[in-house]
Amino acid sequence: MNKVDIKQTAALLRQNDGFLLLCHRYPDGDTIGSAFALQRAVMALGKKARVICADLIPSKYGYLFDDIETEDFSEKFVVAVDVADPKLLGLLEEEYGQRVDLCIDHHGSNLGYAKNLLLDSSASATGEIIYHLLPELGVKLDRHIADALFTALSTDTGCFRYGNTTPQTMRIAAELMELGIDAAGINRAMFETKSRARMEIERAIYATLEYWFGGQCAVICLTDEMINEAGAGDGDLEGLAPIPKRIEGVKIGVTMREGDGGYKVSVRTSPGLNACDICKRFGGGGHPAASGCFIEGSADEVKFELKSTLESYL
Amino acid sequence: MNKVDIKQTAALLRQNDGFLLLCHRYPDGDTIGSAFALQRAVMALGKKARVICADLIPSKYGYLFDDIETEDFSEKFVVAVDVADPKLLGLLEEEYGQRVDLCIDHHGSNLGYAKNLLLDSSASATGEIIYHLLPELGVKLDRHIADALFTALSTDTGCFRYGNTTPQTMRIAAELMELGIDAAGINRAMFETKSRARMEIERAIYATLEYWFGGQCAVICLTDEMINEAGAGDGDLEGLAPIPKRIEGVKIGVTMREGDGGYKVSVRTSPGLNACDICKRFGGGGHPAASGCFIEGSADEVKFELKSTLESYL
Repeated sequence: MNKVDIKQTAALLRQNDGFLLLCHRYPDGDTIGSAFALQRAVMALGKKARVICADLIPSKYGYLFDDIETEDFSEKFVVAVDVADPKLLGLLEEEYGQRVDLCIDHHGSNLGYAKNLLLDSSASATGEIIYHLLPELGVKLDRHIADALFTALSTDTGCFRYGNTTPQTMRIAAELMELGIDAAGINRAMFETKSRARMEIERAIYATLEYWFGGQCAVICLTDEMINEAGAGDGDLEGLAPIPKRIEGVKIGVTMREGDGGYKVSVRTSPGLNACDICKRFGGGGHPAASGCFIEGSADEVKFELKSTLESYL
Repeated sequence: MNKVDIKQTAALLRQNDGFLLLCHRYPDGDTIGSAFALQRAVMALGKKARVICADLIPSKYGYLFDDIETEDFSEKFVVAVDVADPKLLGLLEEEYGQRVDLCIDHHGSNLGYAKNLLLDSSASATGEIIYHLLPELGVKLDRHIADALFTALSTDTGCFRYGNTTPQTMRIAAELMELGIDAAGINRAMFETKSRARMEIERAIYATLEYWFGGQCAVICLTDEMINEAGAGDGDLEGLAPIPKRIEGVKIGVTMREGDGGYKVSVRTSPGLNACDICKRFGGGGHPAASGCFIEGSADEVKFELKSTLESYL
């Protein structure tokens, strides 16, 4: 594996053609936005490029590629975009996992599986790295590329909300907005629309919400039956773990998810309470503010065990 | 009423002392953040200032003022911050509504009730105007002021999500972040924490969710009983109207709220369907994408009427 910088990456892209751009599975706005921005950039140089992903790209991202026409061509150079681990290529891993010529990524955990790796873990999103690559490629930012990069930045920072958002992220977003993109429309499409299955999952878990110890602890519970009834896929089940902890006054938020004869339990705590300590009691672990463990038994049994243990922490 | 620019505003503030800074009622992050930023700015000039509001300032904003110590002083100059209409002063209107010396605001709808008005309706938040005022006052941005202005910008733009967010908003936010504020922490406090009453309201209305016409229409219903049981105040009931329309596939989102022997009905529609036309049928009106009306009767009666009418639109 060869670590490359922006200039060397631009040189690699200029010297090659026939690009196959790989997104990671469960594709998100960063892998998709970055890949299509890169496709447009190399196409602007007169080269051929195609984006593929092991999973379907959700239709809400259609505005990023609906107008792109690609001719047939034989792939000569494989680029993985925002893919930290070849496993994340999903069904494409077998064919491409060992022959990625270039990986462009911002995950510090990148496994270094590609022949060449452009890694900047200070970037909020891989889209930020693509943004810096454009001038080196001699490609001018246009509105389409700006749409794609804004999507990458906005989605990977939770709409500029999370701690990975930097002043640089904000300034790049400002420049992209000046190209006339519909930033608010993109944000609406990315953050406001919920699948019906997701809505049904929220409705079902909200109904299970319990408060313990005078509201210091809140617990929600997700069962296989709820998932089946809602017809929910993995994408519909993301981001459930933080929900109970977000309620005012809650110091310990617990999310239980049925599986393997028990429940996977996710614990989030306020400063001063150690989620990792709590989960270690059940053979789990993690971070001081967010940890997980597995507890065998029915929902009621698991709740009983949790309640007894949590009591000593409050 | 005298329209003033930034320089004239700075001159007014420099020439005066004993500032009473008024926030609008139902205070939000912009009126609060802007007022405390301005208080700190004039205090940095050695002047006396105090912030007041007709309503309690929610404790989540405590980080903006907990460290400020104000001595007693007699008010000599009244400044309304982010207050478009003296009515929005609430219980303070009677005493101060007619004697506001200066109003600093970004609402195009400002009634011009103050002796001097600094209005910039292109600003995403009043906080942006305060930001531009600081160098004219000769006050250096510090971390405390940056906390306050970031809170103002972030809250009034829905965390940089809404259409009022401009490239300038993003660049100012970038500069504020460089002063070492905990931007992600502020965003968490502003956007992620839910009151328990709000959570109970969401749980209750999610339970009422109905899909009509194969999911093209989604309906939620809020009753007085739910509000009483949750112990919910006005602040807990904001932002409910858009919920049903956010579900994928929903073209007409309907939110019903009990009151006065019937239901206030809020209708949100996708492009191609006119919410205003729909609401006019019931004597209401509004905008093409978001309108409202009142329909007499029980929840079931109102739903029956709505269903019959909406059928002809789909």
